[in-house]
Amino acid sequence: MAYKEKYPSELLSQAVEAISSLPGVGRRSALRLALHLVRQPAENVHHFTDSINRLRDQVRYCRCCHMLSDSELCEICADRKRDARLICVVESVRDVMSIEATGQYHGLYHVLGGIISPIAGVGPSDLTIRELAERVKALEDPSGAEVILALSGDVEGETTAFYIYRQIEASGVKVSSLARGLGFGDDLEYADSLTLGRSIVNRQEFRP
Amino acid sequence: MAYKEKYPSELLSQAVEAISSLPGVGRRSALRLALHLVRQPAENVHHFTDSINRLRDQVRYCRCCHMLSDSELCEICADRKRDARLICVVESVRDVMSIEATGQYHGLYHVLGGIISPIAGVGPSDLTIRELAERVKALEDPSGAEVILALSGDVEGETTAFYIYRQIEASGVKVSSLARGLGFGDDLEYADSLTLGRSIVNRQEFRP
Repeated sequence: MAYKEKYPSELLSQAVEAISSLPGVGRRSALRLALHLVRQPAENVHHFTDSINRLRDQVRYCRCCHMLSDSELCEICADRKRDARLICVVESVRDVMSIEATGQYHGLYHVLGGIISPIAGVGPSDLTIRELAERVKALEDPSGAEVILALSGDVEGETTAFYIYRQIEASGVKVSSLARGLGFGDDLEYADSLTLGRSIVNRQEFRP
Repeated sequence: MAYKEKYPSELLSQAVEAISSLPGVGRRSALRLALHLVRQPAENVHHFTDSINRLRDQVRYCRCCHMLSDSELCEICADRKRDARLICVVESVRDVMSIEATGQYHGLYHVLGGIISPIAGVGPSDLTIRELAERVKALEDPSGAEVILALSGDVEGETTAFYIYRQIEASGVKVSSLARGLGFGDDLEYADSLTLGRSIVNRQEFRP
């Protein structure tokens, strides 16, 4: 804290304080970034701050899948060529981007906006689980549809998956989760035993 | 670039673009930060951007030492208790903060605002070297004063130090540079040979 009081300028100190509130940015990095911004042309800095303000103030969430979107319905939900009988449930927008980047999925999504975590104080009502249940209920033919739970493999992810399963199982929709096992190219020798164990239990038919 | 086109929102894409223009922030980190900011209360985000805009628009440079300052003369230059016969020349504000944090220096500073680097296109006229020469010339008793060149030990630092020396040597001011050698607690075995060599050449009288 003594170090903090040595800032040569109150304006600098306040900017460092604000920048270091970002996740993963310490005071030292914040100072480096603040001094970088001071040296940039004013219009560049204003463009930087404007684009952040615009994002915060104008961005919307898709009314169907709750992904960040510029319009009421996101591009994926609005795309008639995608398979509306598949709903992939993910924690965040980043997961949607990761799955889209694989090019292997052509269904729709449902963004929870987080994961159930008693420690972080996040309960089911903080997420879009109720909206998912309603969305599944509104399906024309639930038994011909599938909800893919693409959540992380830790306790919180498993808890959330189980909670969601209980909310939608009555609808008769098929519920699946991501395959877990060794990654492509992984060496058996270096795999952790939990993953290797699951890979053996969930072994698949060999299709040469 | 294909990945870039998958942003679900143009506003998000623009914010990520802006954030990733910061030094050391890649597109992946920028996306993480943008999604973090979207989830914060609007007033927090506005406070964040306002403090950056204020820093850029309102900060001033001390007319004497060119350090960032909220007033015309910085707190250090305005402090009558500091030794005005000592001028420590540094590259940036961060260096001033590092030296101040040692508590070992009670003179004044001169912030160059960079370092001579032909590769980066930074020449002597881009720095406050002329102002330093004028400041030294204006000293009441140059021969009783000292300019400490506290620049980095790489080629650019040495070049800049030499250039400054040539600009001010005629004034009769004493010019010194930082001691270089093994760090306190350093193990000889792990020291690089250049540093160890300099430590031997510049050995000091043993004062038990």
